[in-house]
Amino acid sequence: MDITEFVAKSIGHWRSQRSAHHLAFGHFEAVQSEIDILSLELDDPAVIELCQTYHVDPQTVVSPFRMSWEGHSDWEDSEVVKGTCVLVPVPDPDRVNCGKLLRDQGYAEEIAAVGEYTITQDGTFILVTVYDRAAAEEKIWFVNPNVRCRVSLIKTSAGSGVVTASFSSEIRQTIKD
Amino acid sequence: MDITEFVAKSIGHWRSQRSAHHLAFGHFEAVQSEIDILSLELDDPAVIELCQTYHVDPQTVVSPFRMSWEGHSDWEDSEVVKGTCVLVPVPDPDRVNCGKLLRDQGYAEEIAAVGEYTITQDGTFILVTVYDRAAAEEKIWFVNPNVRCRVSLIKTSAGSGVVTASFSSEIRQTIKD
Repeated sequence: MDITEFVAKSIGHWRSQRSAHHLAFGHFEAVQSEIDILSLELDDPAVIELCQTYHVDPQTVVSPFRMSWEGHSDWEDSEVVKGTCVLVPVPDPDRVNCGKLLRDQGYAEEIAAVGEYTITQDGTFILVTVYDRAAAEEKIWFVNPNVRCRVSLIKTSAGSGVVTASFSSEIRQTIKD
Repeated sequence: MDITEFVAKSIGHWRSQRSAHHLAFGHFEAVQSEIDILSLELDDPAVIELCQTYHVDPQTVVSPFRMSWEGHSDWEDSEVVKGTCVLVPVPDPDRVNCGKLLRDQGYAEEIAAVGEYTITQDGTFILVTVYDRAAAEEKIWFVNPNVRCRVSLIKTSAGSGVVTASFSSEIRQTIKD
């Protein structure tokens, strides 16, 4: 599976159950959300702008997409967690199924970032993003065309200590009218 | 990583946080438990007996171990969930990092079973066990020597429908006195 196929399989409307384990305290957090993943055109202004920010030639990107989510956590009952961001894969011309993933700031509190992705032989998408004070490692795989799993680890920036481990099961929803 | 190394890294006392997602209902279940994984001798009577049950030559097995767990779920506050079982890997002589995993009945309600395992190039242990009316797929990997992640999927026996997806983060505990 290559990045184009991986993104194509991800396009759609998903219902997500996410459990976060805060390891130091043994706490559980449960989040339910709806996620929309939409394909973007290569010449979409948001894609061009993100390429410019990271000095990436727009001719080298494939399958840009927008991800939006809206949900609620059992930790913050009253608050709706929502956000959107643009994601742009930039395949590495020299390494099969490896590359960069550009992400804009969106309107959530997330910061813009560049991650490094790999797709393993068994079709698992692995994304590593290094921030100033933390690193994130994410694995996403399809169990079948309508079920994806996603494991996200937040580590200390040294990379050895795991602070939070979270798991999402995502089920594709039929298109609404 | 081969099965011997994988089992060796797993030996120890672990604290586990497990979240189960019951997908049809969008329910979350949280389980906290302690897990002990102990190495067994090749000539341990429990290993020999399990080999006999499955007509496996005890000379062909490697790294047998016993796994015991004790925990509680937020669904059944009063009840302690505990069990133990013996696990015996039988590497496939013809395929690298593939084989069978025999499991005895133990004293929990689990039934004896044989699974097929594979260890991927990035060190993920994948176990598929087919039962009469369901199939289980489990992925286990080490984030660092003291943190393992485990994703378990229970599917309908046809294999396409996912009924439960669960995620465990497991942290090695220092040896108690």
